[in-house]
Amino acid sequence: MNKQTYTLLENYMLSCMEDSAHDKEHIYRVLYNGLEIAKTEKDVDYDILIGACLLHDIGRKEQIENPALCHAEVGSKKAYDFLIEHDFETTYAEQVRHCILTHRYRKNNPPQSLEAKILFDADKLDAAGALGMARTLVYKGAISDPLYSLLPDGMVSSGENDTTPSFFQEYKYKLEKIYDRFYTAKGEEMAKQRQQAAIDFYNNLYQEVSASYKNGKDELEKLFSSIN
Amino acid sequence: MNKQTYTLLENYMLSCMEDSAHDKEHIYRVLYNGLEIAKTEKDVDYDILIGACLLHDIGRKEQIENPALCHAEVGSKKAYDFLIEHDFETTYAEQVRHCILTHRYRKNNPPQSLEAKILFDADKLDAAGALGMARTLVYKGAISDPLYSLLPDGMVSSGENDTTPSFFQEYKYKLEKIYDRFYTAKGEEMAKQRQQAAIDFYNNLYQEVSASYKNGKDELEKLFSSIN
Repeated sequence: MNKQTYTLLENYMLSCMEDSAHDKEHIYRVLYNGLEIAKTEKDVDYDILIGACLLHDIGRKEQIENPALCHAEVGSKKAYDFLIEHDFETTYAEQVRHCILTHRYRKNNPPQSLEAKILFDADKLDAAGALGMARTLVYKGAISDPLYSLLPDGMVSSGENDTTPSFFQEYKYKLEKIYDRFYTAKGEEMAKQRQQAAIDFYNNLYQEVSASYKNGKDELEKLFSSIN
Repeated sequence: MNKQTYTLLENYMLSCMEDSAHDKEHIYRVLYNGLEIAKTEKDVDYDILIGACLLHDIGRKEQIENPALCHAEVGSKKAYDFLIEHDFETTYAEQVRHCILTHRYRKNNPPQSLEAKILFDADKLDAAGALGMARTLVYKGAISDPLYSLLPDGMVSSGENDTTPSFFQEYKYKLEKIYDRFYTAKGEEMAKQRQQAAIDFYNNLYQEVSASYKNGKDELEKLFSSIN
């Protein structure tokens, strides 16, 4: 891909971006992750890969405005239309559309092409490690979800089997489990290098808050019972 | 403090709370931290301490609506008025007011009483360790600040000497420096136990994102120059 084409796609991407967990820096990280993974794969079509990485989240805004919409579906259509309108070849627009349509984790629509698999992994890498924790916390703040829920006994829930949305619930339900869902060897290797950072952060956070509730509620009960 | 008085103050606190970084669970953690610290101090007045912990952030809503207001000032006045209105003794209301007024880190208004020092430390503990990182990220998400800024060369800034608000800037400007600003020995001990978790998380996050930009931008430049 030449610089002029890159800039055309980049500017279209920038015009579509909004909320801060999926802001433009996420797009650049996914692109950079994708290029890193591509180095270890044979016969990658860089034009398709770069186009797909740049445009993979351009349907986010529509999904935020209407959660019934899927940003992968909306984005793949928007990308296809944009590329056709700007005189890219139909086969190119179709390949980019396939990558974007299948980049989201959905059992019924897995990535087929090499570039789609690389995009999928590059995007998942941004949910791995310390970065995955940080981005999820930022997102939880934006939608006003809490860090954790309390169990019926008033103690902090680990997030396991929670039904109420919280950061711990998202960690147990999704973030903890992404590390064996990569398509490329390099993607998996990069994710696993970052895994311990996420585990440590969760464990430290859970330990800090649960110790606080355990000690504090005991103290409070002692105080009440010494007075009454 | 008896359970009835506790519930009166708790319900007033709950009626004042809003945004999720300073939600009601923050209040309980500060109370529990305060009780933990109090165990190691002599002659703590638990009525003052519990009242001050429960009511210390009731001025947050006013500060969010008008950032020119200081939540410690607003909250101390609201707490004093509430206590007088509910027939607490004037000296008690004054002591609680002092704790709340001085709980915020401000050079010109440090905590004087033992209970004020415990509240200060108990509140600062919630900005230490993994929890301090998590709460700051949630807050950054709520106000749409980014994780980091880019340097003029396009690389990720560590946050050091940044003027643009970001998570890394907040870490370098404030979170990294709180560990030697405690008034009680127990508060400092608890904070230092959590310090490594924050340092590790920052280092992991910085390493993940900066490696991504460094490798990715190099790859992109190589691609452009091989075509043009």
